[in-house]
Amino acid sequence: MLKKFLIAPGPTPVPAEVLLEIAKPVMHHRTAEFSAIFAEARNGLKPLFGTSQDVIILLSSGTAAMEASIVNTLSQNDRILVIDGGKFGERWGSIAKKYGLTVDTLKYTWGESAKAADVEAHLNKFPDTKAVFIQGSETSTTVYHPLKEIAAVVRKFDNTIFVVDGITSVGVYDTKMDEWGIDIMLSGSQKAFMLPPGLAFITLSQKAWKMTESSTLPKFYLNLATELKNQKKDTTAWTPGVNLIYGLTKSLQMMNEEGLENIYKRHAICAEATRKALTALGLKLLAVDSPSNAATGVFMPEGIDAVKFEYYMREKVGITFAGGQDDLKGKVIRVSHLGYHGLFDTITAISAIEMGLKVFGYNVQLGKGVAACEEVFAAHLPKA
Amino acid sequence: MLKKFLIAPGPTPVPAEVLLEIAKPVMHHRTAEFSAIFAEARNGLKPLFGTSQDVIILLSSGTAAMEASIVNTLSQNDRILVIDGGKFGERWGSIAKKYGLTVDTLKYTWGESAKAADVEAHLNKFPDTKAVFIQGSETSTTVYHPLKEIAAVVRKFDNTIFVVDGITSVGVYDTKMDEWGIDIMLSGSQKAFMLPPGLAFITLSQKAWKMTESSTLPKFYLNLATELKNQKKDTTAWTPGVNLIYGLTKSLQMMNEEGLENIYKRHAICAEATRKALTALGLKLLAVDSPSNAATGVFMPEGIDAVKFEYYMREKVGITFAGGQDDLKGKVIRVSHLGYHGLFDTITAISAIEMGLKVFGYNVQLGKGVAACEEVFAAHLPKA
Repeated sequence: MLKKFLIAPGPTPVPAEVLLEIAKPVMHHRTAEFSAIFAEARNGLKPLFGTSQDVIILLSSGTAAMEASIVNTLSQNDRILVIDGGKFGERWGSIAKKYGLTVDTLKYTWGESAKAADVEAHLNKFPDTKAVFIQGSETSTTVYHPLKEIAAVVRKFDNTIFVVDGITSVGVYDTKMDEWGIDIMLSGSQKAFMLPPGLAFITLSQKAWKMTESSTLPKFYLNLATELKNQKKDTTAWTPGVNLIYGLTKSLQMMNEEGLENIYKRHAICAEATRKALTALGLKLLAVDSPSNAATGVFMPEGIDAVKFEYYMREKVGITFAGGQDDLKGKVIRVSHLGYHGLFDTITAISAIEMGLKVFGYNVQLGKGVAACEEVFAAHLPKA
Repeated sequence: MLKKFLIAPGPTPVPAEVLLEIAKPVMHHRTAEFSAIFAEARNGLKPLFGTSQDVIILLSSGTAAMEASIVNTLSQNDRILVIDGGKFGERWGSIAKKYGLTVDTLKYTWGESAKAADVEAHLNKFPDTKAVFIQGSETSTTVYHPLKEIAAVVRKFDNTIFVVDGITSVGVYDTKMDEWGIDIMLSGSQKAFMLPPGLAFITLSQKAWKMTESSTLPKFYLNLATELKNQKKDTTAWTPGVNLIYGLTKSLQMMNEEGLENIYKRHAICAEATRKALTALGLKLLAVDSPSNAATGVFMPEGIDAVKFEYYMREKVGITFAGGQDDLKGKVIRVSHLGYHGLFDTITAISAIEMGLKVFGYNVQLGKGVAACEEVFAAHLPKA
């Protein structure tokens, strides 16, 4: 028996309780019974986004929610700023260009976090910038961008909104959207929400909703004003992901039982333990200055092909990590801390890496990484 | 105990075998293991569409696949013809107008089917029409449009494609897309496919793929060329609906075990029995000349509010039918035959309607509708 562990930054493992909820019989979506479930899900999402605004639930992957944030607020030739520190930063630019926007890019080396001062300098130079796009956690580089600091800069500009892809930061970091002044925040079900892929979430500030009124980019399935009108009545414009929404109410219940503060802390501790363990093994982390609590990228030692290592882990050891993307392919692996992931999943991950390195001929002291993990965890264990 | 029956034209009931398949643990989508499952699903879909072309699987509701058929093949100001015989026909026009197309509409009274001769006359008058849009089965009016005849007309025009929303006709009717000359056909998981909402399917002829090359309408999440490139390698551009795709392979296995011919026949027999039963009860059918085998719409007798009747059925009897849309609201109910629906579900539906009519004060001979059903079914039962 090869017992399997999914330790990649999405999709992430789903608790059996949630899977069984999803397996319940389908019900019709235009009923009071479903609306009650939908209302519970909608309300349950707000604290995770740190907002009192409506959180809209879409039936799509997160990429569609990124596209929705663009096509609902902007018009052709509008100038925007994309903060591009990795694969998902790049994606903002790719979408925006398809819609004929004027895209300025603040590019960071993969592994570096964005700096609020750079954003401020750019906006001072180009005050006609309509929107600034960023990731909370840039999954490709396992870097956390300083959302609070950048929000504080953007909110100085009355005609500029701040749009955050929180796909791997919502549910990982305590993000105070309303308080900090984030204008759009979006996420996806298959990350910290402990669900299979299929739902995307997006919420807009009143400043962003105001912009939707003048936006002329074409949209239909992703028309957020139409969705808002429906979702305020606890229904949807198009057929919703009925069974995934059952699962969402269950996972939100589980998250509330654990407590959001505890969830954020759990992610932080697992991430810290992972970083200390990998460093103790002599490995180099991918994130240079602001490692994310969603996932940790690490360079394989010279001479080890990360693609082969990742394949070996998955097929022979039962552990699914993620590899590196684009230039990082074959160089790094990424270890997730997202969602339904506890201390012993981190121990498992580190133990697997230690053993794998040995199998691949790297001179590693077995147990050293695990010991570093345990050091971190032990400090947080309850008193005997 | 109120045992529940979902007899509305979508979402439709999902077999327990499929629900449990969906409840299996999530796996990473960028793996050979998932690709094998995805390949099985892709290949399994082709016979249902009557095509040798790739069937692309999207993570969305069917409406997004309708939008995809427009934004991938056309450019602003292109002239199109929308065949509008109901709510979903209308939707083609609504989407197309959002993207700045020139929309001609061939409008039919709700309950009437489209006529190939009308389409031919229109195309002769406007040979610059780039695409003709239709539903296979128009769910709002429970009418089947003559796809084969209209395809034969459209294929005479070299620069015009024929686009079919097969959301409630694929899996219900034997549709020979390649043979008849349909250029785009799409469908959704929550209808004949015996799955929860969340997957949409779309397939294009070579003539339609050719048009994608010159299409300039903006798209990102719904970019079919990008999807095709990925799906030909048994992967997807964006995160796919992993668990729903597990379910899809299971439901396709079940459909193959039953045999597609038998599935089409089952739908036809249940629809025929329903029509005969409702007529025997003295009720008037919604479809005038070409009733669909996906669902049967029926007018409530004078003095019975269909909204109240439908509510009573759902809340007090446990049977979910669908009501009428727009002008038909309060006037009709719609009885589904779609997907995981057997003879005794039809008997249940008719029995419930008989009893409900009596409760609502209509002078009905109990058992008369069921007898008419049984007459139809008995003729198809195996020999003793």
